[in-house]
Amino acid sequence: MSNSIVDLHYELALASRMLANEGVLDAFGHVSLRHPADSGRYLLPRARSPQLVEPADVLEFTLDSEPVRPTAEKLFAERVIHGCIYAARSDVMAVCHHHAAAVLPFCIAGVAIVPVFHLGAAVGEDIPFWDQRDEFGDTNLLVVKPEEGRSLARALAAQAAVLMSHHGATVVGKDVRELVSRAIFMCQNAQYQLQARLLGNVVPLSSGEARLAGSINGMPNVVGRTWEYWTMRLADAGRLPQRPPRGVRARNSARSRHASATSAASRRRKRPGGG
Amino acid sequence: MSNSIVDLHYELALASRMLANEGVLDAFGHVSLRHPADSGRYLLPRARSPQLVEPADVLEFTLDSEPVRPTAEKLFAERVIHGCIYAARSDVMAVCHHHAAAVLPFCIAGVAIVPVFHLGAAVGEDIPFWDQRDEFGDTNLLVVKPEEGRSLARALAAQAAVLMSHHGATVVGKDVRELVSRAIFMCQNAQYQLQARLLGNVVPLSSGEARLAGSINGMPNVVGRTWEYWTMRLADAGRLPQRPPRGVRARNSARSRHASATSAASRRRKRPGGG
Amino acid sequence: MSNSIVDLHYELALASRMLANEGVLDAFGHVSLRHPADSGRYLLPRARSPQLVEPADVLEFTLDSEPVRPTAEKLFAERVIHGCIYAARSDVMAVCHHHAAAVLPFCIAGVAIVPVFHLGAAVGEDIPFWDQRDEFGDTNLLVVKPEEGRSLARALAAQAAVLMSHHGATVVGKDVRELVSRAIFMCQNAQYQLQARLLGNVVPLSSGEARLAGSINGMPNVVGRTWEYWTMRLADAGRLPQRPPRGVRARNSARSRHASATSAASRRRKRPGGG
Amino acid sequence: MSNSIVDLHYELALASRMLANEGVLDAFGHVSLRHPADSGRYLLPRARSPQLVEPADVLEFTLDSEPVRPTAEKLFAERVIHGCIYAARSDVMAVCHHHAAAVLPFCIAGVAIVPVFHLGAAVGEDIPFWDQRDEFGDTNLLVVKPEEGRSLARALAAQAAVLMSHHGATVVGKDVRELVSRAIFMCQNAQYQLQARLLGNVVPLSSGEARLAGSINGMPNVVGRTWEYWTMRLADAGRLPQRPPRGVRARNSARSRHASATSAASRRRKRPGGG
Repeated sequence: MSNSIVDLHYELALASRMLANEGVLDAFGHVSLRHPADSGRYLLPRARSPQLVEPADVLEFTLDSEPVRPTAEKLFAERVIHGCIYAARSDVMAVCHHHAAAVLPFCIAGVAIVPVFHLGAAVGEDIPFWDQRDEFGDTNLLVVKPEEGRSLARALAAQAAVLMSHHGATVVGKDVRELVSRAIFMCQNAQYQLQARLLGNVVPLSSGEARLAGSINGMPNVVGRTWEYWTMRLADAGRLPQRPPRGVRARNSARSRHASATSAASRRRKRPGGG
Repeated sequence: MSNSIVDLHYELALASRMLANEGVLDAFGHVSLRHPADSGRYLLPRARSPQLVEPADVLEFTLDSEPVRPTAEKLFAERVIHGCIYAARSDVMAVCHHHAAAVLPFCIAGVAIVPVFHLGAAVGEDIPFWDQRDEFGDTNLLVVKPEEGRSLARALAAQAAVLMSHHGATVVGKDVRELVSRAIFMCQNAQYQLQARLLGNVVPLSSGEARLAGSINGMPNVVGRTWEYWTMRLADAGRLPQRPPRGVRARNSARSRHASATSAASRRRKRPGGG
Repeated sequence: MSNSIVDLHYELALASRMLANEGVLDAFGHVSLRHPADSGRYLLPRARSPQLVEPADVLEFTLDSEPVRPTAEKLFAERVIHGCIYAARSDVMAVCHHHAAAVLPFCIAGVAIVPVFHLGAAVGEDIPFWDQRDEFGDTNLLVVKPEEGRSLARALAAQAAVLMSHHGATVVGKDVRELVSRAIFMCQNAQYQLQARLLGNVVPLSSGEARLAGSINGMPNVVGRTWEYWTMRLADAGRLPQRPPRGVRARNSARSRHASATSAASRRRKRPGGG
Repeated sequence: MSNSIVDLHYELALASRMLANEGVLDAFGHVSLRHPADSGRYLLPRARSPQLVEPADVLEFTLDSEPVRPTAEKLFAERVIHGCIYAARSDVMAVCHHHAAAVLPFCIAGVAIVPVFHLGAAVGEDIPFWDQRDEFGDTNLLVVKPEEGRSLARALAAQAAVLMSHHGATVVGKDVRELVSRAIFMCQNAQYQLQARLLGNVVPLSSGEARLAGSINGMPNVVGRTWEYWTMRLADAGRLPQRPPRGVRARNSARSRHASATSAASRRRKRPGGG
């Protein structure tokens, strides 16, 4: 396995745990990355709660969501969500499916999530609402058949996220950091939208504001800041994934990127009196 | 005491603490298991907050809720809940009575909890509502007399859970894992239902969806995942029960089942910088 | 200082921290105990956030709320609350004044807190509502003058608690454990009442139920359980007060009462893998 | 660098982390202090999440929000908020811009935050509401241009805080402790106001009460208590900033001011059984 793939496995475990630590994922939900060297494959962990995912849990799948190498591991029943979206959206490099507490009330009441603060614009003005029942009648609501996955991908269309009736949401990104920030800001947006509704009228951003604010989460002085912050919080929770052993060549990639947060955490543990 | 009973005592302490750690139980509430070798007995801890229960706290009761062996320990006043349900429901192997914050608003407002997301279907479409006042007039609301316990068991009928007016809920399962997942998902369902109501109309699952989704929590690749996750969270909180000393024969049961979560926790403590 | 007073100082620090750890107190609020040997005095810490109170912070006051011994320490501006209630209510041995988040919405909206679940009956059916403005016009809302304290005590009358408009609440008890359980259950009751209102109609306990359920929190198999539980949570938070040095004679009092929770906490810290 | 400036860098890092630990700041938001010796300069960290700010991250800016010394560090895009307010308000020595979850529903619904409890009066009776769209049309909602900063400062006028439509709030103070207490109490006030609205009618403090209660947060026996409490909570979270090395002369300033909370934290870590 090349060092860049070793790094990606770590990145995927890190993103899974980060999203769990921020309340987007819980016992359920999963994150995948498209294979950087083969756009016909994607990386997804074996079926395991995201806060427990280690780099060694990551497996490779075809876009038909079949494991590339035979495996005895338990697999996520809903992995077609990932395969079908990667097949339909060449711009998407990262996918997260989740049941976050913040979005579920909207999935149940059938109310649209609209951008209500600047960072909420990260998922765009229009988050489609997909009801599996429309096309498939009564199901157990899991997206397990290829046609269910394709239907969801069609509903997602060119958007950043899709709500799933009585189930949760699926979010996409052009890389893992865009995905993580979109998933987190969408949950915050949902929470604020619900509470604003309790106060009175919910006034969303204008179309112009939503468009302009939509790229704040990708600004260089923002993306580094949020990644360091979420990594620090995961380190404080004692939940950073394990580093796999790796060659010398990759020294300057993922490891150094997290260096400041990691050393903050170890510093924290060393200080006896906080000083 | 046989090794399998030693394991069950541990399992009961673990489930009690897990449900407390997930917010279902607090200072109050209790979990019991039917005796696997004698269907006329059940296992219940002495009166103690569930997050403090140790395997050594577990006592054995007849279905009349009398201790099998004389004891000087304080006992739960409401243990007839367990005895009467085991007497009425031969399919039930595990019972939990609780006052979870998520369900109490429903117990107070007299509003039914209905399945509003796929995992919420774990407790079925119909959760009966039992008001002690209907049959017994003014009481202190504790279920302490055998006739009160029998009345509650009649209200539960063949369902998975029953709401208790101004008091809490009682949940049952065919084993401890089904019980734990039902209790947790029912609380999540209640929380989402309340918030969906704040957004507008609450649309429950269709009957067909509820029936199909009702067994997701028992799917092999789900039950292992949730158990590992809730165990990990309990280990992170430093609240796993103590292992009782035990023979060699039982090596492959409970201990190995929790091995991955336990070793994750100890690994976490060993890593200095999270790496 | 006698050993029993040493124990009381510890008990007061413990109760202060426990109530802070359970969300009743925050940076503000204070707990006092009547002097067991002199009903004309009470014990109250110097002005300090309750989660930081140590036994050595406890001072002695007359019922005029003057320190018995001259002191250079900063004192709570609102200590007349305690003095005036002890003067008016010979049955009261413990007082807590707080600004808990759970009760403040009721203090602001002017809505009565009524018992909505069995444990909520611990503060009785009738919690009076006191508005300082009625008698004193515009003030800074702090209860600092003796006449303000007396007015509050008159409003409290023979009840277990009083709401204070735009300010908080004051709770009393016949001993520290009754006080602590009343304060905690009143907050839970307020939280459930608010959420039940969001679901629809709030149906309180009947008068008979409230009367019968009102003493559950004093049942022997309840009071030991809650005290052990709240102590355990405080120990888990690393916030138990420091034990003052003490004589041999008092060995069997406070120290042994908390022994199980304390040893659970130290056990927790020793276990490497939770086992 | 003089010892007093070294102390200020520490104070700024401490305030940033404290406000993050209390839920006012998250990945975003920033705190600044006016330079004590040069009213035409202010101190602000490089662009970094507030819970990670170290004293060494603090930079010096002119009131045009240009760095006094050339730097390669990433800078906050919105630092004009600070410069423009210091330019307009000679009484202001500390500024905090944030997106706290408690205020966002008000920023979205366009509902005014009014003082509803005594401590909420710390930000006065009138918190202006500023909508960037009124003057600048569609923007990404970030306050980055000098004219945007000046417009915000005009909206703030002589008040203690200003709400920013769909964005957050900016709070000011005459020193760092007033700023911190205002920011925290304003968030608590917002939370209680929203929940009081769910109960019924929100009755604010009278003008006289608001004026009188407005200075409670500056009372000597209050300001020391809150600062010790918030420091203790930050120490418990393991998040105190690092002390920079400093000369002997400054021994009695910041270090000794936090001594009690710090030693409580180290004591806590040393106690095995909490006793």
